[in-house]
Amino acid sequence: MFAELEQLGKQAQRAARRLRTLDTETKNRALEGIAQVLRERQADILAANAEDLTAGRATGLSEAMLERLLLNEARLQSMAADIRHIIALPDPVGETFDGQTLPNGLQITKRRVPIGVIGVIYESRPNVTVDIASLCIKSGNAAILRGGKEAACSNAALAEAVAAGCERGGVPREAIQLIRSQERELVKDMLTADQYINMIIPRGGAGLHDFARRNATIPVITGGIGICHIFIDESADIAKAIPIVFNAKVQRPTVCNALDVLLVHASIAPRILPAIAADLARAQVELRCDPRAHAILRDHPLAKPAGPEDFDTEFLSLVLAVKVVDSLDEALDHIEQHSTHHSDAILTENYSHAMRFTDEVDSAAVYVNASTRFTDGSQFGLGAEVAISTQRLHARGPMALRELTTYKWVVLGDGQVRP
Amino acid sequence: MFAELEQLGKQAQRAARRLRTLDTETKNRALEGIAQVLRERQADILAANAEDLTAGRATGLSEAMLERLLLNEARLQSMAADIRHIIALPDPVGETFDGQTLPNGLQITKRRVPIGVIGVIYESRPNVTVDIASLCIKSGNAAILRGGKEAACSNAALAEAVAAGCERGGVPREAIQLIRSQERELVKDMLTADQYINMIIPRGGAGLHDFARRNATIPVITGGIGICHIFIDESADIAKAIPIVFNAKVQRPTVCNALDVLLVHASIAPRILPAIAADLARAQVELRCDPRAHAILRDHPLAKPAGPEDFDTEFLSLVLAVKVVDSLDEALDHIEQHSTHHSDAILTENYSHAMRFTDEVDSAAVYVNASTRFTDGSQFGLGAEVAISTQRLHARGPMALRELTTYKWVVLGDGQVRP
Repeated sequence: MFAELEQLGKQAQRAARRLRTLDTETKNRALEGIAQVLRERQADILAANAEDLTAGRATGLSEAMLERLLLNEARLQSMAADIRHIIALPDPVGETFDGQTLPNGLQITKRRVPIGVIGVIYESRPNVTVDIASLCIKSGNAAILRGGKEAACSNAALAEAVAAGCERGGVPREAIQLIRSQERELVKDMLTADQYINMIIPRGGAGLHDFARRNATIPVITGGIGICHIFIDESADIAKAIPIVFNAKVQRPTVCNALDVLLVHASIAPRILPAIAADLARAQVELRCDPRAHAILRDHPLAKPAGPEDFDTEFLSLVLAVKVVDSLDEALDHIEQHSTHHSDAILTENYSHAMRFTDEVDSAAVYVNASTRFTDGSQFGLGAEVAISTQRLHARGPMALRELTTYKWVVLGDGQVRP
Repeated sequence: MFAELEQLGKQAQRAARRLRTLDTETKNRALEGIAQVLRERQADILAANAEDLTAGRATGLSEAMLERLLLNEARLQSMAADIRHIIALPDPVGETFDGQTLPNGLQITKRRVPIGVIGVIYESRPNVTVDIASLCIKSGNAAILRGGKEAACSNAALAEAVAAGCERGGVPREAIQLIRSQERELVKDMLTADQYINMIIPRGGAGLHDFARRNATIPVITGGIGICHIFIDESADIAKAIPIVFNAKVQRPTVCNALDVLLVHASIAPRILPAIAADLARAQVELRCDPRAHAILRDHPLAKPAGPEDFDTEFLSLVLAVKVVDSLDEALDHIEQHSTHHSDAILTENYSHAMRFTDEVDSAAVYVNASTRFTDGSQFGLGAEVAISTQRLHARGPMALRELTTYKWVVLGDGQVRP
């Protein structure tokens, strides 16, 4: 194992032992400390960010990448605002539940406790450094962060601010540690450092998630990949359906809960598809159509026949696959086979069909008559979001503070032995 | 991938889709069907088991292994009784929780749903086949089972009975499938068959758990390995402590929640250690002592100096490591460093020490004044047990029906779009 990782791992374990018994007030004081230090060190942080931007331009990063990398006063203020928002959220640690007294007098409860040390691997956006740090501190976890090399200077300056803020609040500065080495091989070491790290969160594209899952011996929260469906049933209210489809596809097309595949019941398709296509044309959405949909949209300038991959693609752009189906059953079968089980919706006024869809579609979030874009920690009322899980264990869908915890069984006795 | 695994995987996926929407009554009918078929086919099952026993004797299996492999009328009746017990337990599927109505009118709930397809890898005890099958059916999961080759005939006969019982109750016979191939390489394929299997449960020793964790791309429930501690504090009630230590060590020494390490406060050690040693001598428990404990127990015939590994060993036998410590803090430090965080206990009459121990020891089960032997699904009131998890994600400690489920978010709207 890389020496740096070994050292950070030992320090993180020690910090985690302290963190797991800290009271809420101390953790909030550290969070407030971080918000303050971010403001005090603004000039240093922006200077470090400028170094990354200069290097990024020199190595030919795209404008979109440079935009994601950019920090400015407003973005730093927004980070501080997010921290204060996390301060205001309830502390999940210490909650007790499922309590019972057994016939033999043993008093048993489950008590919510931090997971321990969280390993996070992320790509260019430096705000993730502060975002994850705040969520981990509030939930009593230590973290080891591995950011992208494009943001190395920015991340180092932000991690230094986080450490200083922790100390100001009485939390060990080793609570949140950034890996400095940029060696690629270190990531593999990190994924198998099960003696130091209890959970891995990859934040990035499908390639990163897949790499983490294939190489880790530590549990990995995989997610974020969404091939999302809307099925417009024959009874759908056209006036609701058109804006929902537009919102799901257009409001932010680059994210995982954006719409990818529109399934339309054959009996409503001739009426609704031209209206939807016209509406989506306002945003220049390209339509990749199965033969029946294409027959209806033949004259639409942005409609073309779908290729073989189009019903299995997360577009992350203004492209939508469209297919006509003959029944709810055909829609359910299509979703079962092609969905990544992130977010899928039915638009219907038929009560029984709404019930069947919510019963039978097995996705992290299942919708009736609403946009798939709501699958998000803030939108679901969790107050924050550390990741969206599309795996089935531990947590599903948006993950926030509570999902960064586990529980222990606390058993209070008075001399009981097992018969 | 092995063709057999591929075929079973596809069938399991289809069965899982049926199983996840079955009502409780149908699932219970299938369980009752299995109990009946076990009785009807008793002669065939025992004949198959006799084949395994004959082969086992020929290949030189130990008497202990043969004993674990043995089926007889009483054991089959006990399996049927266990099935009827699972019928009586509540169905976890369909439970809704964390419901809320958002300001925009969206109605959001979490709904408990099955995990999907469970892969189980286990060793010689054939009752696991029926045990896991029943728990999976009740919780709406399909399962692919890989048993040990010593029990191949018994497992095949039992799996056939399970399939017949399922059909009798109206549940697809592919709900529970046994892998017939005995190729070792198939296990690796199984651990990476993430397109078909959603969770892996290894049931066996540390080697199997480790192999699964290192090779799987599917989430693995690791557990079952316990280096368990009891700390006798200076204020402990000697009359309670002696029977607790005896019970934790002796009542069933071959299991994971049995006691391995006894830590004793220096101020009580001279009084209590000789009494404990004398009590444990009734069961011929060997004591491996640190120098201070050995100084106290010098004349005890079963006490000897501990070797370097003795405080990091799960003995699974009538051996106990013993160490004298000077304080609660030293005990906490020792447990932090040496425990597998399965089950650890303090024996004390000091309220503040009891609180500190339960706050600071981060094990799946933390006890005050009770035997570690209680860490068990039935003892904790879960009614059954599929595994004991010592990992931190998804579930910790005893896992039963609810721990074989996940949840989905169900979102009911009326035209909402994200602003």
